[in-house]
Amino acid sequence: MDGLNMSRRIRRTPYTDRVEEAGVRGFSVVNHMLLPKAFGPTVEEDYWHLREHVQIWDVSVQRQVQIMGPDAAALVQWMTPRNISNAEIGDCFYIPIIDDKGGLINDPVMLKLAEDEFWLSIADSDVLLYAMGLALGRGMDVEITEPDVNPVAIQGPKAEDLLASLFGKKIRDIRFFKYDWIDFKGTRQLIARSGYSRQGGFEIYLRGGHLGPALWDSIWEAGQAFNITPGCPNLIERIEGGLLSYGNEFTRDNNPFEIGHGKYCTIDNSINYVGREALQTIALNGVSREIRGVAFDGGPCPTCSKAWPVMVGKTQVGSITSAIWSPRLKRNVGQSMINRGFWDPGQTVTVHSQEGSVRLGEISALPFA
Amino acid sequence: MDGLNMSRRIRRTPYTDRVEEAGVRGFSVVNHMLLPKAFGPTVEEDYWHLREHVQIWDVSVQRQVQIMGPDAAALVQWMTPRNISNAEIGDCFYIPIIDDKGGLINDPVMLKLAEDEFWLSIADSDVLLYAMGLALGRGMDVEITEPDVNPVAIQGPKAEDLLASLFGKKIRDIRFFKYDWIDFKGTRQLIARSGYSRQGGFEIYLRGGHLGPALWDSIWEAGQAFNITPGCPNLIERIEGGLLSYGNEFTRDNNPFEIGHGKYCTIDNSINYVGREALQTIALNGVSREIRGVAFDGGPCPTCSKAWPVMVGKTQVGSITSAIWSPRLKRNVGQSMINRGFWDPGQTVTVHSQEGSVRLGEISALPFA
Repeated sequence: MDGLNMSRRIRRTPYTDRVEEAGVRGFSVVNHMLLPKAFGPTVEEDYWHLREHVQIWDVSVQRQVQIMGPDAAALVQWMTPRNISNAEIGDCFYIPIIDDKGGLINDPVMLKLAEDEFWLSIADSDVLLYAMGLALGRGMDVEITEPDVNPVAIQGPKAEDLLASLFGKKIRDIRFFKYDWIDFKGTRQLIARSGYSRQGGFEIYLRGGHLGPALWDSIWEAGQAFNITPGCPNLIERIEGGLLSYGNEFTRDNNPFEIGHGKYCTIDNSINYVGREALQTIALNGVSREIRGVAFDGGPCPTCSKAWPVMVGKTQVGSITSAIWSPRLKRNVGQSMINRGFWDPGQTVTVHSQEGSVRLGEISALPFA
Repeated sequence: MDGLNMSRRIRRTPYTDRVEEAGVRGFSVVNHMLLPKAFGPTVEEDYWHLREHVQIWDVSVQRQVQIMGPDAAALVQWMTPRNISNAEIGDCFYIPIIDDKGGLINDPVMLKLAEDEFWLSIADSDVLLYAMGLALGRGMDVEITEPDVNPVAIQGPKAEDLLASLFGKKIRDIRFFKYDWIDFKGTRQLIARSGYSRQGGFEIYLRGGHLGPALWDSIWEAGQAFNITPGCPNLIERIEGGLLSYGNEFTRDNNPFEIGHGKYCTIDNSINYVGREALQTIALNGVSREIRGVAFDGGPCPTCSKAWPVMVGKTQVGSITSAIWSPRLKRNVGQSMINRGFWDPGQTVTVHSQEGSVRLGEISALPFA
């Protein structure tokens, strides 16, 4: 059973008409909005295409929380353990957002637009409401809105050539996790070298949803020379690449150290943020579980919609939360929180998938080789 | 295209296994969780059954935001314009939650469990993050959590008889929007006379998801004598009954007065809450649009997943956001914000539905007769 009942509450995007015309086979819902989840006949074909060519993805679900005003920088800093004082205009910063216990609320990309203006490009939780609560509670002088900004991703090894053909060679000068501005039909639009794949590419943060179909069409037309297809975040590529998904691999029950993001956390007292004391304690004591890859046998596994126990003998050492068959590695690959003591690559485990099978496997580093 | 891609991020409920066994035909996603959306062959058959018999609904998506501690009552009051000082333990209060501009953030049912303990049974937005932000920002002494509470609704004219047969005749003494406690397998469980239909019924706020299948089975078994079926909020019944849906009929762009909830708002200075000044200004100036019903011709209309213009001549006076064919009224019924000046029942309009047809109709009061 996999029908999705449509309603206005689950918002369409400026590209949904195009996505439907392109033959989308399924959606997910992120931030109260539609995210395309399947196009080609199989996820495998999409995967190979993404690795070799270029795809256009409707990622409007990456809503922007716009924080402006005299206290904007102070509020953003208060929301994250990452020191943002060295962020420059033109930077994209990956920032964990945590609660007072160190639990992860979201893991957005922060775009610094001006000294007093930021976008947080969010995963699936209402960061806007959290930010608004903090600001109202503390009486901070900020304006917090969800602007009419609708990201579209162009991903794959041919993305740069495609976009250079469309917007000029300045595209090639944009470095990873930096952004610049391009002209589209007389409007100034933000483009960043970023995206939810390991195959390279860009994201255009289109301001003005009414321009969506025209932008899609322009990219599509220019993309014909580069074998473009419609696509979406690819589960095989994401798991192989060790890209985590908020709500899947980690939730408010996890802290940044557990997902390998300790490197983004300032734990001394040089900056002030919600959850600093909790992170200091966690850093002192170490974590009892950490994210790892799990490679396992037994032919293509089913969809993982429940947590699958990862066992060492009779001891449960983790739970797989995303898994799929990798046609390249010719094994199943999954991601799991793994208990301390079982972290070493090569550690033998069994995986108990929801259709009832027990599969042999072992712990792997992330990303997979 | 209506496929829903399953993942752990879109959480299953304690009843999802049962719901699938019962032949669910579609889901929606609310609060990052699955809401069943169709069972019977048609929405019409479900509608007639709901009006005549009894149904069991998995409404676990109505997540509880639990607010406990010395400042709990002060925080809840700060979140809503409804005066909660007269709420007693055992009361359910419908409380609009608004932002500092008066825009609606959610419209939960508040259950007062103790002087220092509240549940907010929420519609589709992360009220937990908002409450947490307010509390952290203001330094309030509260603990805010999402407990393992999983509401199941028993709706329809036979709901009381069914539940009295299962839990005893004390069920009959529970008044509308009051709750009491029942014993289920040695656990104390909350039951309220409430639910998202106009056909009467109850909601059991099951504490302990592991008990979900057993509770479902108990109700199902006892329900055989009452012609029970699995069900879900029914779009025909909801629209006829004038029940609004956050994200569909109203969003943060709307204030409580626009959706007829001015009666819940205290606008004098006797209580202090976020958005009070904004509501005072709105109350002074009046609103420029209000929710109304629209009845319209032309045979069963398609699913409303985009806003449909409601016109008077060449002037757009509103947008229909939910609509469906009513087999009882033998017309289409919809809900729409309608501009001032066009509010009177009987006002002639045309409805421009997304498949391109223009249909004659008129404004109606809510609920429909």
